[in-house]
Amino acid sequence: MKKILGIDVGGTKIVYAMINENGNFLTTPEKTSTPKNIEELISLFKNIITKHENDIDITAFATAGAVNIENTRVDSSTPNLPTGYNSIDFSTLSKKPVFVENDANAAAWAEFKVGAAIGENNTITITLGTGVGGGFIVDGKLLRGKSGRAGEVGSMKIQGRGRVCTCNRKDCFESYSSGTGLKKTAEELALTSKYFKESIYKDKTPKNITTYDIINGLKNNDEYSKAVFETWKNDLVVGLINITNIFDPESIIISGGMGEFINTEEMENKINSEIVVSPVKIKLAKAGNYSGMIGAALLASEKY
Amino acid sequence: MKKILGIDVGGTKIVYAMINENGNFLTTPEKTSTPKNIEELISLFKNIITKHENDIDITAFATAGAVNIENTRVDSSTPNLPTGYNSIDFSTLSKKPVFVENDANAAAWAEFKVGAAIGENNTITITLGTGVGGGFIVDGKLLRGKSGRAGEVGSMKIQGRGRVCTCNRKDCFESYSSGTGLKKTAEELALTSKYFKESIYKDKTPKNITTYDIINGLKNNDEYSKAVFETWKNDLVVGLINITNIFDPESIIISGGMGEFINTEEMENKINSEIVVSPVKIKLAKAGNYSGMIGAALLASEKY
Repeated sequence: MKKILGIDVGGTKIVYAMINENGNFLTTPEKTSTPKNIEELISLFKNIITKHENDIDITAFATAGAVNIENTRVDSSTPNLPTGYNSIDFSTLSKKPVFVENDANAAAWAEFKVGAAIGENNTITITLGTGVGGGFIVDGKLLRGKSGRAGEVGSMKIQGRGRVCTCNRKDCFESYSSGTGLKKTAEELALTSKYFKESIYKDKTPKNITTYDIINGLKNNDEYSKAVFETWKNDLVVGLINITNIFDPESIIISGGMGEFINTEEMENKINSEIVVSPVKIKLAKAGNYSGMIGAALLASEKY
Repeated sequence: MKKILGIDVGGTKIVYAMINENGNFLTTPEKTSTPKNIEELISLFKNIITKHENDIDITAFATAGAVNIENTRVDSSTPNLPTGYNSIDFSTLSKKPVFVENDANAAAWAEFKVGAAIGENNTITITLGTGVGGGFIVDGKLLRGKSGRAGEVGSMKIQGRGRVCTCNRKDCFESYSSGTGLKKTAEELALTSKYFKESIYKDKTPKNITTYDIINGLKNNDEYSKAVFETWKNDLVVGLINITNIFDPESIIISGGMGEFINTEEMENKINSEIVVSPVKIKLAKAGNYSGMIGAALLASEKY
């Protein structure tokens, strides 16, 4: 059975572990901070790989950013990673094969192979975190497009309320449905919702209301927090309706930190009452925090 | 070489012809009106098929409506076709194989195989007419989803201006970007645009301004008509940006009557300046008026 060194590259930390081709961990995942400059990052990668190289068949990276169609490079800018990250040819980091995939794509593959969507050949995983990521499985294959960049659902324009995204474009799905989007909705509703003046947050500066405040407000039955969350959910539903009508998937898997606050049954009913294709199942992710690394390892073991 | 009887089923007319597996016509397409009741429609289908059955290998239908995953039935409602249309099991209409595909999907396949997108394994055809249809080619295969209904891009919600679609849902892409959408935009801007009172249509009731009027207005350099068309194009661009970011296609092919009024180069530049994936080409359809029938015939010849 093949052994894969999985490496998850995030803006703040790098996690790595040995994984077998069934997606099971052979070693406990280890964490380290993401270096701030490119030379240090490359030498960290080399150190991790050298340490494991004799025991593995392949190295698999799950990373932020758009990955090229050959799965060897990141060819977009990645604001949270050192400048020059997109100049790394990952295939040169090891004597053995190296495979790179976008983390949202890899997470979708993990859900399909070992998570919440096993056996569902048409399934979409939406990762709700600081941003919104998407990975699309079409007829049992990962949707990659002409250049490897497919799945950028966070940049789908919805609603038209003119909200400016962190990418400076307007009305990106991500600007509404991410954690950052929830915070922005909280700020907007603090200025417009009739519930704000009765809210437990009425003395806070709207800009300073956090995602955590809103979640906490829900637990305390705060009407303003409920209105914020309802708006956030409705925006999310619009995005999920759109991809359901286009892909006619068996399931949409919700991954990431925001997922735990969603009532999937309620959301499934809302979506199914609006779509023109046949009903879709909405489920929470099951492949865990390391789904990116696991999915990249599983994809790599299919390729090599 | 296989011979296919292609039959295109529309709300007002039915067109049929014999086609070979290269997509070339073996007979001149014949037209007949679409019967108003289901018994007459079935007996028309049987008559057409019986007349050709000895000379063909397969019958291929291109039709409005959602087609099941087995390509044997329409399993959605089809308001422009007789009640009971979705009860027809097309496979019983002939002693030889019968294949059914949605007309927008079939048109996309024709563009991919013999039209404007030859050799482009990731390509999308958008049909702009009374409604908006979409057909998606992913890695050289037609996107059909779990139940055959994928590609319902006309129901993608965009803009959020609250426009009510003919399906009674709000903000469908179709309600903005179809011919009907252009007429609706004309009506709205007649009430709000500063150019209307100087327009050649200033004496018309806003509701009665037609798509033809706007196209005619463009030719006459009417500022109001230009503003209407600009708004319509911007709405279309939003929809095309969304599908480009999700699919990362090589091309989007614009099909249908509205296409001839579009400057594809201008539209391509607008889209490419907003997307986060690599650039897409925007082209007009080439497979002609009978692309649905041709695409269905080509798909059928691959299956049988």
